[in-house]
Amino acid sequence: MAIVLGPNQYGKAENRVVRIYRDSPRHEIHDVNVSTSLRGDFAAAHLAGDQGSVLPTDTQKQTAYSYAKEKGLTSIEPYGITLATHFVDDVVPVDGARVEIEEYAWERVTVDGAEHDHTFVRRGQEVRTAAITVEGKGDAQRVWLVGGLKDLTILKTTGSEFHGFLTDPYTVLEPTSDRIMATSLVARWRFASTDPADWADLDWEGLYAGVKQTMVEVFATLQSLALQQTLFEMGKAVLERYDVLAEVRLSAPNKHHFLYDLSRFGVDNPGEVFHADDRPYGLIQASVLRDDAPDAGSAWTPGAGFA
Amino acid sequence: MAIVLGPNQYGKAENRVVRIYRDSPRHEIHDVNVSTSLRGDFAAAHLAGDQGSVLPTDTQKQTAYSYAKEKGLTSIEPYGITLATHFVDDVVPVDGARVEIEEYAWERVTVDGAEHDHTFVRRGQEVRTAAITVEGKGDAQRVWLVGGLKDLTILKTTGSEFHGFLTDPYTVLEPTSDRIMATSLVARWRFASTDPADWADLDWEGLYAGVKQTMVEVFATLQSLALQQTLFEMGKAVLERYDVLAEVRLSAPNKHHFLYDLSRFGVDNPGEVFHADDRPYGLIQASVLRDDAPDAGSAWTPGAGFA
Amino acid sequence: MAIVLGPNQYGKAENRVVRIYRDSPRHEIHDVNVSTSLRGDFAAAHLAGDQGSVLPTDTQKQTAYSYAKEKGLTSIEPYGITLATHFVDDVVPVDGARVEIEEYAWERVTVDGAEHDHTFVRRGQEVRTAAITVEGKGDAQRVWLVGGLKDLTILKTTGSEFHGFLTDPYTVLEPTSDRIMATSLVARWRFASTDPADWADLDWEGLYAGVKQTMVEVFATLQSLALQQTLFEMGKAVLERYDVLAEVRLSAPNKHHFLYDLSRFGVDNPGEVFHADDRPYGLIQASVLRDDAPDAGSAWTPGAGFA
Amino acid sequence: MAIVLGPNQYGKAENRVVRIYRDSPRHEIHDVNVSTSLRGDFAAAHLAGDQGSVLPTDTQKQTAYSYAKEKGLTSIEPYGITLATHFVDDVVPVDGARVEIEEYAWERVTVDGAEHDHTFVRRGQEVRTAAITVEGKGDAQRVWLVGGLKDLTILKTTGSEFHGFLTDPYTVLEPTSDRIMATSLVARWRFASTDPADWADLDWEGLYAGVKQTMVEVFATLQSLALQQTLFEMGKAVLERYDVLAEVRLSAPNKHHFLYDLSRFGVDNPGEVFHADDRPYGLIQASVLRDDAPDAGSAWTPGAGFA
Repeated sequence: MAIVLGPNQYGKAENRVVRIYRDSPRHEIHDVNVSTSLRGDFAAAHLAGDQGSVLPTDTQKQTAYSYAKEKGLTSIEPYGITLATHFVDDVVPVDGARVEIEEYAWERVTVDGAEHDHTFVRRGQEVRTAAITVEGKGDAQRVWLVGGLKDLTILKTTGSEFHGFLTDPYTVLEPTSDRIMATSLVARWRFASTDPADWADLDWEGLYAGVKQTMVEVFATLQSLALQQTLFEMGKAVLERYDVLAEVRLSAPNKHHFLYDLSRFGVDNPGEVFHADDRPYGLIQASVLRDDAPDAGSAWTPGAGFA
Repeated sequence: MAIVLGPNQYGKAENRVVRIYRDSPRHEIHDVNVSTSLRGDFAAAHLAGDQGSVLPTDTQKQTAYSYAKEKGLTSIEPYGITLATHFVDDVVPVDGARVEIEEYAWERVTVDGAEHDHTFVRRGQEVRTAAITVEGKGDAQRVWLVGGLKDLTILKTTGSEFHGFLTDPYTVLEPTSDRIMATSLVARWRFASTDPADWADLDWEGLYAGVKQTMVEVFATLQSLALQQTLFEMGKAVLERYDVLAEVRLSAPNKHHFLYDLSRFGVDNPGEVFHADDRPYGLIQASVLRDDAPDAGSAWTPGAGFA
Repeated sequence: MAIVLGPNQYGKAENRVVRIYRDSPRHEIHDVNVSTSLRGDFAAAHLAGDQGSVLPTDTQKQTAYSYAKEKGLTSIEPYGITLATHFVDDVVPVDGARVEIEEYAWERVTVDGAEHDHTFVRRGQEVRTAAITVEGKGDAQRVWLVGGLKDLTILKTTGSEFHGFLTDPYTVLEPTSDRIMATSLVARWRFASTDPADWADLDWEGLYAGVKQTMVEVFATLQSLALQQTLFEMGKAVLERYDVLAEVRLSAPNKHHFLYDLSRFGVDNPGEVFHADDRPYGLIQASVLRDDAPDAGSAWTPGAGFA
Repeated sequence: MAIVLGPNQYGKAENRVVRIYRDSPRHEIHDVNVSTSLRGDFAAAHLAGDQGSVLPTDTQKQTAYSYAKEKGLTSIEPYGITLATHFVDDVVPVDGARVEIEEYAWERVTVDGAEHDHTFVRRGQEVRTAAITVEGKGDAQRVWLVGGLKDLTILKTTGSEFHGFLTDPYTVLEPTSDRIMATSLVARWRFASTDPADWADLDWEGLYAGVKQTMVEVFATLQSLALQQTLFEMGKAVLERYDVLAEVRLSAPNKHHFLYDLSRFGVDNPGEVFHADDRPYGLIQASVLRDDAPDAGSAWTPGAGFA
């Protein structure tokens, strides 16, 4: 029996790159958190401490910052593709690279009713994400692209039911035909193609906004019988609208809002005062995909960025 | 020599009260985090474990939830005043109460271009705050009110300088005439009056929006020679616009954005690529007030809510 | 083309169960965070909102608490196995269950030099983890068990080198033969067997302590040429010592400590004053396993507990 | 009416200084988070943007790191006093300085039963704190010193009661004669003297350990009728033991552990299974002091370090 090295990767996590475009008085800002991971034959580093094939994580960091200027950083998807492809194409021992990006959105402040040229406030709401995996060199190269968002906290004050569920001796939950439904949504969408040439004319910003809006609209308008149903319909609507996508994965905590018992004080509470609880929370996770979706390959294998 | 009890208070921190108004199909939501603290003669509890004068923190919690229905919860300031006054007026041993509130803002989602009736997304940006201190019973009662916000992350990509500073042997910082200035602002504004009757007709929502907008506009438009100068002008503009306020206190981390050195790679970087650093950060704190501002009394003495 | 449901699971995350044993004056405490996920045929819930096969997440919560009393909660591994097996065996539509547990350690305080019977302080250091996956019913049932720890922050002030690495045009890092090496270790160890009967006599507490100590000793005593090498040797030593384990997975941020440049102030700094930086950080991840390790099956597929 | 500048200060927060002593093979580590704030006449910076009196926060940072080598960093109290005094003595416009320090404790790992020379694990438990305020120059100079700790999570499984409390119409809490009492303690102790010469021979490490142990022992052994009583007795015991201290301030969240209702499942639960809730929590705050304690001056006025 021998002890051997299994799957491994290494990289630099959470490079906080801020890119300003100031070619005109109306500046633009792109504020991202970039994590890179390299895969390949790094057995010598593990088994013998030999770094001859190891490009330092510091070098990965330098490249992430420099590429923000050299190659530009507007939409995170093409920036990530360029960076990941560079590592695979230009660093001999690397045969796979994973780049994960979070983007923090800023919006212009208004002054006297007009958008200001160079002052921004950080918009909260969701964080936009992208995960790019490049595998193989030359003609064999494939690029897996996953777009996404996280921390989209969304709530509806009615239009949500939960009843008819399975029961056992530990079931004390009461069915309900009207409850608050709230979640902090994580959604990721996998692109069908693995050839970047297919995305040459893609409107990245429009696609992102459209996917988000599609999911929000389904969340709002579907009379929900369960969070599972809502999630499936959200993913389905996205796939129906965007042919370029093959799969949507959703992870949604059920952030419980408990109706507060005020009857002890002689106060009626018909769905008006709630306690928002922190823990525990439900967690519903589902994949929605085309029945002819191509194989996901390494698309969902995490790198350094998503703990 | 004897060992004695000094200042003390006790309360319930972080009650997560969510209040829905559903009197029409267009629901409203108010989502707050309420902390209460009571002050008075609680020596027996400390010295002898005698709870005869101690209204439990659980009771404070129940009251916070029930008042959201009984008294209503729209603007956080009057809700907090009503709650704090109740403790002082109705609980014999209590001669002072502090209520601190954070409000999390939600905005309606749009469906087919129209605002939805009952679905909301959590807006990030700032958290609105209020701190109410009620002292004394009957005619001697005074109410100190402090409005505020926190976590307003604001950034300008130009229009900020820093030079001409004092130097000593440990000074290696280079002066600059053009830098990114970014902060995560905490601001609080103290009301001049301590009599709630003076606020009977106040437009709480309008005041809050106006104070925030005033600060944002000064931040954007002032050519800044230092964060100190920017903060002072922000506070000054608020006081000039709102007679009802006597003092503004600002606390602003200087969130450093360091220009990244790309010259090592033969890449020019004229203010375009930055590293956003986490720690350490500068921290500038200042009070701006009218020269005839009334005494602040207990206005700034923290309760349970602001760690 | 049709849109279909892919992999899915649902459960209750972060149940904060605290179990006290008070059968003698010397109390025991077990403080855990339990997350459960159920897998099976829940298509009707997703496609039609039909909850007939869905045991509520609330029921999962109730069971986790009740089992802490009914079945006991001492070592987290057998508690988790019992809970996961229950869901698969006793809930008809469930054919797989994942239970993930974090345990927070407490240690007795000392009074007059002796351990106190019922007062404890929370030990920091690492959090112990376990992940149990039960699949299949009856004779086909298999139980995948993964023990682990996280947040073990460990540092050596010398005995760490990094040089001889690959370089490219973006490489500016200087090689070093003496640096601080620090990490916040996440380690997980997979058991070779999938039959709980094989663990009937296992000393769970002894195994955990032994695995941790083995890793700590290797970290301390190995002259490190790279974090990769250190991780591999840590995993290897664990496998060499414990036949019951088949694989160790390690994830280790390289928490950078930068030597501070004091030469500008005429102060020598031979490895004595460092800046501990937050972000970015290196991240090294590796699996170490026996060459005859059985298939990992669902052992590493996350449930609700590990975001 | 004019608008004027009120109290203000500025500084550098959260410098993460790590100091290694390596004069022998048995290394020592001191790992701290230092925040500095300067006070003085900085009106010109606020009113006119004139930085002529402003020593940059970057300079404060450089000094904090360099002093860790030049002056040494063993116990945090004398390091902080030296640093704060330097700013007041050597920077003309500064007439007050506040230095706040957190220290993260490390303990040696053991290898083959012996403490290792240069490998450490971060001990969790509490964080040690110090706050030093220096005011005035020359003979008028005074130094306020406050030692402390935070995040000491301590729990007793019995020996805690709560009954006989005041009730009102919102009181639904049941009295109890046996509950879990748990808190995450923040304690700070003010020194009586303001002249550092009085501390020339002080055993800083012994004092810290003794104060902590005294509080822990009272928490453990006092049959508690309320958290208020426990806190008072903890502070009193510290003052009775240490003449050098004048006042102790304690802030203690009541971390609720709710007995879980298992009767619905036919399971008895005599104080054995609890739910540890996150929010809301009680918060008890008290000062305990000598009746002849000198005036606290600026001892409790926060600087940049304690948000």
